Amino acid sequence: MKRSELVTYLDAYLEVASFEGIDRSMNSLVVGPLDREVHTVAFAVDACQAVFEGAIEAGADLLVVHHGLFWGQPLAVCGPHYTRLKTLIEGNLDVYAAHLPLDAHSEVGNNITIARKLGLQDIQGFAEHKGRMLGFKGTLADGRSAEWISARLGFKNPLILPFGDEVIHRVGIVSGGASSDVLAALSDGLDCFITGEFEHQYYHDAAEGGITVIAGGHYVTETFGPLALMEHIRETFSLNVVFVANPTGL
Amino acid sequence: MKRSELVTYLDAYLEVASFEGIDRSMNSLVVGPLDREVHTVAFAVDACQAVFEGAIEAGADLLVVHHGLFWGQPLAVCGPHYTRLKTLIEGNLDVYAAHLPLDAHSEVGNNITIARKLGLQDIQGFAEHKGRMLGFKGTLADGRSAEWISARLGFKNPLILPFGDEVIHRVGIVSGGASSDVLAALSDGLDCFITGEFEHQYYHDAAEGGITVIAGGHYVTETFGPLALMEHIRETFSLNVVFVANPTGL
Amino acid sequence: MKRSELVTYLDAYLEVASFEGIDRSMNSLVVGPLDREVHTVAFAVDACQAVFEGAIEAGADLLVVHHGLFWGQPLAVCGPHYTRLKTLIEGNLDVYAAHLPLDAHSEVGNNITIARKLGLQDIQGFAEHKGRMLGFKGTLADGRSAEWISARLGFKNPLILPFGDEVIHRVGIVSGGASSDVLAALSDGLDCFITGEFEHQYYHDAAEGGITVIAGGHYVTETFGPLALMEHIRETFSLNVVFVANPTGL
Amino acid sequence: MKRSELVTYLDAYLEVASFEGIDRSMNSLVVGPLDREVHTVAFAVDACQAVFEGAIEAGADLLVVHHGLFWGQPLAVCGPHYTRLKTLIEGNLDVYAAHLPLDAHSEVGNNITIARKLGLQDIQGFAEHKGRMLGFKGTLADGRSAEWISARLGFKNPLILPFGDEVIHRVGIVSGGASSDVLAALSDGLDCFITGEFEHQYYHDAAEGGITVIAGGHYVTETFGPLALMEHIRETFSLNVVFVANPTGL
Amino acid sequence: MKRSELVTYLDAYLEVASFEGIDRSMNSLVVGPLDREVHTVAFAVDACQAVFEGAIEAGADLLVVHHGLFWGQPLAVCGPHYTRLKTLIEGNLDVYAAHLPLDAHSEVGNNITIARKLGLQDIQGFAEHKGRMLGFKGTLADGRSAEWISARLGFKNPLILPFGDEVIHRVGIVSGGASSDVLAALSDGLDCFITGEFEHQYYHDAAEGGITVIAGGHYVTETFGPLALMEHIRETFSLNVVFVANPTGL
Amino acid sequence: MKRSELVTYLDAYLEVASFEGIDRSMNSLVVGPLDREVHTVAFAVDACQAVFEGAIEAGADLLVVHHGLFWGQPLAVCGPHYTRLKTLIEGNLDVYAAHLPLDAHSEVGNNITIARKLGLQDIQGFAEHKGRMLGFKGTLADGRSAEWISARLGFKNPLILPFGDEVIHRVGIVSGGASSDVLAALSDGLDCFITGEFEHQYYHDAAEGGITVIAGGHYVTETFGPLALMEHIRETFSLNVVFVANPTGL
Repeated sequence: MKRSELVTYLDAYLEVASFEGIDRSMNSLVVGPLDREVHTVAFAVDACQAVFEGAIEAGADLLVVHHGLFWGQPLAVCGPHYTRLKTLIEGNLDVYAAHLPLDAHSEVGNNITIARKLGLQDIQGFAEHKGRMLGFKGTLADGRSAEWISARLGFKNPLILPFGDEVIHRVGIVSGGASSDVLAALSDGLDCFITGEFEHQYYHDAAEGGITVIAGGHYVTETFGPLALMEHIRETFSLNVVFVANPTGL
Repeated sequence: MKRSELVTYLDAYLEVASFEGIDRSMNSLVVGPLDREVHTVAFAVDACQAVFEGAIEAGADLLVVHHGLFWGQPLAVCGPHYTRLKTLIEGNLDVYAAHLPLDAHSEVGNNITIARKLGLQDIQGFAEHKGRMLGFKGTLADGRSAEWISARLGFKNPLILPFGDEVIHRVGIVSGGASSDVLAALSDGLDCFITGEFEHQYYHDAAEGGITVIAGGHYVTETFGPLALMEHIRETFSLNVVFVANPTGL
Repeated sequence: MKRSELVTYLDAYLEVASFEGIDRSMNSLVVGPLDREVHTVAFAVDACQAVFEGAIEAGADLLVVHHGLFWGQPLAVCGPHYTRLKTLIEGNLDVYAAHLPLDAHSEVGNNITIARKLGLQDIQGFAEHKGRMLGFKGTLADGRSAEWISARLGFKNPLILPFGDEVIHRVGIVSGGASSDVLAALSDGLDCFITGEFEHQYYHDAAEGGITVIAGGHYVTETFGPLALMEHIRETFSLNVVFVANPTGL
Repeated sequence: MKRSELVTYLDAYLEVASFEGIDRSMNSLVVGPLDREVHTVAFAVDACQAVFEGAIEAGADLLVVHHGLFWGQPLAVCGPHYTRLKTLIEGNLDVYAAHLPLDAHSEVGNNITIARKLGLQDIQGFAEHKGRMLGFKGTLADGRSAEWISARLGFKNPLILPFGDEVIHRVGIVSGGASSDVLAALSDGLDCFITGEFEHQYYHDAAEGGITVIAGGHYVTETFGPLALMEHIRETFSLNVVFVANPTGL
Repeated sequence: MKRSELVTYLDAYLEVASFEGIDRSMNSLVVGPLDREVHTVAFAVDACQAVFEGAIEAGADLLVVHHGLFWGQPLAVCGPHYTRLKTLIEGNLDVYAAHLPLDAHSEVGNNITIARKLGLQDIQGFAEHKGRMLGFKGTLADGRSAEWISARLGFKNPLILPFGDEVIHRVGIVSGGASSDVLAALSDGLDCFITGEFEHQYYHDAAEGGITVIAGGHYVTETFGPLALMEHIRETFSLNVVFVANPTGL
Repeated sequence: MKRSELVTYLDAYLEVASFEGIDRSMNSLVVGPLDREVHTVAFAVDACQAVFEGAIEAGADLLVVHHGLFWGQPLAVCGPHYTRLKTLIEGNLDVYAAHLPLDAHSEVGNNITIARKLGLQDIQGFAEHKGRMLGFKGTLADGRSAEWISARLGFKNPLILPFGDEVIHRVGIVSGGASSDVLAALSDGLDCFITGEFEHQYYHDAAEGGITVIAGGHYVTETFGPLALMEHIRETFSLNVVFVANPTGL
């Protein structure tokens, strides 16, 4: 199919336009010449050199990433950024980015996908950012431990700060580097806050507020959305899809 | 010589760092991989497709332009911008930009070069922009007409608004699109304001303030600096130089 | 009729209040003592000395202009501005300004009037500015040349940049000095962008994007709205109306 | 003498340019046509209708005021503002404003003049505003009561909040409406803060911090500077001078 | 009852959340440990040491004030602020603040309560502040004098500026320090503007615009809301209530 | 000694005033009543409940912390913050905060202390933040491994990203959560960047730029400054000092 048709579909499905002024990431198509055919679409967490090479090796025409290339500041085309663009241009690989749209999406977003994996009930939006909820919160009907949650989500080496009750019912989720949303979790009276990275700066808020924090890794918690979106695209269009893994350990 | 040596020289000579926070243009090296050798340097007014192709055809390794590629907003690598970067990368042409540093420079800037061409005396800085003078002003000892000035500067089809005295003594110069600086010229009591483009918006300020305006064209008035810098580089280093003309008529 | 009644009518008809925070021009009544009678209303593009004198000579009580006197900065009552106010006060001429409200209006705005003059079909809003469409776009059913369009609009000495197809179907219009809206025209896939002044800065965007630009003059393109509003007022109220022409050639 | 010579002198003497970006008042000449002769200069606190009429009646060519006409926002020439400008233009009265420059001046400012009237010793700058000291502070060698201070300054009906020691040694002064500077007085460990108007909002800061506040009236405390400047101009130039009193009781 | 239940009720009744971004005061509960029982609620205008001591002496568990402790800037816990918090913590007194919510409220706000006390008819919102009406305006059917109004509101020592007609029909009200809203009163064509404190800065606007101003005192005009809210709480819940008076004379 | 004398000394020695507008932390004395005697001074990284209790148990009168209580936003005195202030007030413990002043200090700052511990030569300022260098950089004369550096600094469980040469010569240091300063380290051509926490967001910059990152923990890297300052105070004054350890593992 035409790349432009797929871009139009993704922009609408992910409600990209509604994040203008909210997301400092440049979303939608960020690298690509005039329209061309797409046969294989790669998905990944980060727009980085290793992922670009992996996607080209896998024969992809378009790469869909959660973390794109442009973050509100112009970027000189020098050093590693030169190498990245040279690789993309010579490899005929175009790039589509979806940052907050792929955190907050109610079907394939990172957070809703984690919430469903945990079997949460009464799922609602959580953690406002410039007037928009980016995360989700809900209830574990049976009550579970932090270890059960970590195992269920496949976290290999999670950071667990066990400051709340051992039996967890009310859970809030914001993937990636979202330490400050522990304050929203405290305001909302939750038992547990799940995120990717957790900073020292909010340690005492969690400790003195009495909430359990599970930090599963920035990279790991942000594979859920790209994988769910990949599945959605595979089911919706007759396109080859491939996930390019590139874990950072962070 | 190494491109990095030339970039270091240009940054210092043009005082690029001192324009941080003043110039929204990204200056210095804006396209280029890790260091490489430079043999031929091209100079031009605009960073555009036609100039890139001309410079590559002329065998240039580095192109020095007055109007660069980045202006404070990130730019998706799509459409014509994709073509531009592809051309530069495949043509092994790097790009160095110097916007306000090449307007305001006291030896090779657009404005000082025009001032010297006119033989102005008592030359001083003129037209403050965020605390920095970008233009120059001075005196025509003999008194001259707007037509004499236009001819002296080689303006083919200038816009002349003859609202001041016919005999011009005190002249202020800001190249390019600098209509609003006619207000500085009025405050300073000048007889004539020379610029590139002049907008309707300031017509009545000139008319009622009684000052003659000469608009020689944005492109034309901004060839003076690149040509002077080219000459300076030719004299300072053993490098081939070439000017890539691409007039827009504006 | 009372001036206050006419001002109330104009404020409502032109939806002046809805442009607060969008238009840096001070709109509505900008010069006038406590209420008085209006018999003759003058219309013009610019609030300048020559127009004030013309309107007073024509016996006008109120002058309606597109470009008013105040643009977001306080203005010392000195030099030409002193003369302007003295002329108005001694000539008993009041001033009403309507800047963006008279660009964007869907009945008598500059842009809709141009669109109708061209016989565009499927007319829609075009070129967003702070959340508001200021221009209009539409389709020339038969396909026309840039020369046909210029002649149809009475442009004497237009700047035509013929970078698009010779036969023009999709047209976008923003009167005055609106060069940057050529980017909106490119995004919207139009064949031709009509404006008043066109700056060097956007030349290469037009050239490489492949769109034809027609710049008919800032003054000329902004006579359409004042003339249409004059006609509307003449038909609506029993008032004398007069248009005070004062072309700048820009 | 030429008005322009006097304006140049006042701008330099009052260091008007150094208050750019600090004072939201438009200072220097704010109403006046091209240059004309000045014979009589009036001085007053406020630029208001009654003062304009008084100055014209006194035969003044130029009026120097502490509170000018423009405060950072453009002002429609309507209603009372229309009447003011009409009065000035028809009465051939020009207006020069000096707001913060006439508060902070070290020879003729409101605050230094009050400080000298009180015979303060060890006088230093006091109460920073955007990096600039606007007031002065110093010591009453003998120790005085709030009543003695009020009488010495000619305050008719002062507000005295006697929260500090009865015997006052260390005094800080900021004329006009400067309630918030009581916080600076507390930081500096002063015994007494003298100002014009004092607001409820800072009452408890004064009470709990234990400092005596004397509010002599906004108008009254700001007559000191204009009178001192009048005296200075009378001594420096051969000009007639006149003070136009217009107390508001506030 | 639980303090948290009362806080939830007050937040909803006073629509506290809707003032976010409008009110620089921190509203809702501003001092208090985890939940505890409330038996006696004190009401006052200002959060100050004398009021805290009065409320503790009266046996209050919670103090509701119009002027709270935090105004957009962090505050070091030093000097008098240390003493205040020590007093509250040792006295087991919690504090709830409601600033603009208690000015603008349509049942128990300062302004509506004054409007009802005067028997105004056709009551509407008045005096916009960041998109929200804070005051009320309405009509005195019979026409009254400034003295009648002052007496009716119990003003002991009001400032009356009698610049309008003696017989007052149209009245606008904004309690506290709201001098600048006299401009809204002039725009709305009112006969009289009632506020708490009135500054010199707006004296000439009132005088030349021809409107009567009544300034009844910041403290006095802001007792109406707390007293009305106290009555409402007494009627709604079985709680003891007490008003802690602490007039400043300002 | 008097607490006020010590506060005055610390303010001057740490150049606290020079960080105004640079540091969003409120520095200097942040909790304390009017002056009192200090005998024992505690030092710690964080102002948190556990540290407060530890310092009180150790008999401290004053606690000096790197991370204080106030960060640019007002804070309701509720929940854990209420408990913290109650603990401090009842325990007679005052708090002094020094955030960026204790990062950037050239004798006892976190970064210079690390630099000296490593035996760096040619030490210079590094990593600008709002016009001020917060870190230090220098050279390891002999060349060392990342493991040697970690061991030398006592890092128990460091994160090492070994993207640069194995033998490290040029080192840059910014303690705490300073991931983004890896970009400064790349610009400066360093071999190794030492910090506290390192985020996923900058992983690929480090990887593709080819620099080794050592993240020793936010808490651990910020014990160096408080310990050095404690030693300095012990040597300068006859005061008891104690360090209150409270590692977070982050």
